[in-house]
Amino acid sequence: MPLTPFDVDRLVAIITEEVLRAAGGLVVTGRCACHSLHAECCPDLLRGVLDAGASRLGMQASGGPAGSVAGLIDHTLLKPDASQVEIETLCREAAEYHFATVCLNPIWVPLAARLLRGSGVGVCTVVGFPLGATTADVKQFETRRVIFDGATEVDMVINVGALKSGDVRTVHQDIQAVTAVCRAAGVLSKVIIEAALLTDEEKVTACTLSKAAGADFVKTSTGFAKGGATAADVALMRRVVGDSMGVKAAGGVRDLTGAQAMVQAGASRIGASAGVRIVQESRGTTPVGSGAGGY
Amino acid sequence: MPLTPFDVDRLVAIITEEVLRAAGGLVVTGRCACHSLHAECCPDLLRGVLDAGASRLGMQASGGPAGSVAGLIDHTLLKPDASQVEIETLCREAAEYHFATVCLNPIWVPLAARLLRGSGVGVCTVVGFPLGATTADVKQFETRRVIFDGATEVDMVINVGALKSGDVRTVHQDIQAVTAVCRAAGVLSKVIIEAALLTDEEKVTACTLSKAAGADFVKTSTGFAKGGATAADVALMRRVVGDSMGVKAAGGVRDLTGAQAMVQAGASRIGASAGVRIVQESRGTTPVGSGAGGY
Repeated sequence: MPLTPFDVDRLVAIITEEVLRAAGGLVVTGRCACHSLHAECCPDLLRGVLDAGASRLGMQASGGPAGSVAGLIDHTLLKPDASQVEIETLCREAAEYHFATVCLNPIWVPLAARLLRGSGVGVCTVVGFPLGATTADVKQFETRRVIFDGATEVDMVINVGALKSGDVRTVHQDIQAVTAVCRAAGVLSKVIIEAALLTDEEKVTACTLSKAAGADFVKTSTGFAKGGATAADVALMRRVVGDSMGVKAAGGVRDLTGAQAMVQAGASRIGASAGVRIVQESRGTTPVGSGAGGY
Repeated sequence: MPLTPFDVDRLVAIITEEVLRAAGGLVVTGRCACHSLHAECCPDLLRGVLDAGASRLGMQASGGPAGSVAGLIDHTLLKPDASQVEIETLCREAAEYHFATVCLNPIWVPLAARLLRGSGVGVCTVVGFPLGATTADVKQFETRRVIFDGATEVDMVINVGALKSGDVRTVHQDIQAVTAVCRAAGVLSKVIIEAALLTDEEKVTACTLSKAAGADFVKTSTGFAKGGATAADVALMRRVVGDSMGVKAAGGVRDLTGAQAMVQAGASRIGASAGVRIVQESRGTTPVGSGAGGY
């Protein structure tokens, strides 16, 4: 069976982690200019990973590699009144702690892409967020725009209203409008099903349609609905999508215990504004970082 | 001084109300096919208003005209999990109670435009909602799309993050990207400043920029932030924009007393999910209607 782009991503991630571990704390910063995790658009990524390890030994003084937990986290700031200074802090923290990505609103993508160039941290943004109630062509336009601006990962919200109305065809087309553009550009796509608003049956439907539409991840929540991620939802979603997709738990993950519960349930990515706290807890240090508030 | 489009709107509204009052309960359904309140694109609107009064006498049995309060209300349902059945109910109520518009998410605009054709009720929708954190070109694309689908009024959210960062130029360009398209299409534009997130100084700046960008209304809130409309905010906004623009109070207006307080403070439009309750209270009947919950 040929490797899918997602298989390649996982392979790269595993090798990267092993190299890091073998190097005993070396920090790898080699990632191609497009910031993408997709190896097919970054033919030199593996070589870069292997070659670049020694380049930032000095990082250890300012925190060093945070261990595997940081690499699972999308360091998130989505509140509408976040200022440029707060976004700059978010990006600085992400580079320091080596989070997988920063996750921020579309208006901040160009700034984040510029600040994080060469850091190994991706730029994740949101589309149709947080209501998912814009039309498919608007979501697709928004996706093209954020990719143009430098996004390497796109978290889109499904058309919840169509799902609630039994219009499965519209839900599928809506997801595909975004995932097709992402796939063509070598950008990771995540589909937010907003589990707190759905019945279990609707959760299954949403995950099935996401898989059928070629998404890379399903994601539990926006963080703006009445509830966030639960371990039960993560487990259900993992069962539906199997091992060939990612599951992102987001909304309400505020500490290491919460993050571990999500990973144990099947999450392969965590969306959180408390990333610094989570990493510090994993090191046994007292949490002092910013962003430990709500999602 | 020549009449502005907004002056013409107000003139039409006043004449319509007087005609309704003089007719003692006749329901006027004449509005041009574009559903617009802008007389400049509806040259026959005044004639239609005067001619069409007798066409729906039967409405009185099912409620009849609700008096001037209904005409101030955007009957609102913006929760992401609203289903088609709920949207149909919203539109039916709007036609029955003669609200100014229904206010709903973009995905429902085509349905609402179809259901409300000829009813005299406008179709209001939201752009860049509720965070306002998409780029100007995405908001403009979204605006074109909803107007194509039949929206007659567009409520857009400002770029709060840019305002918080002191980037006034970006805030202005963002508003103008939407208002210019609306104005060209004869569609009413409202600018949501999300007052609960702003200092008084930022509220003044946002209202000033909205006026400079040619918006028809400023609007207090999305209903999704930590606070909704306050009489103090409405009064401040009215002072800044003067008499030549509208002020819409939205978020947390749940009864007649609340609506009256907003009007007294200077509001010329109310966004509420409790429209039915408000109208029933104004008639002295017991509230039994749907939509009396949160915004």
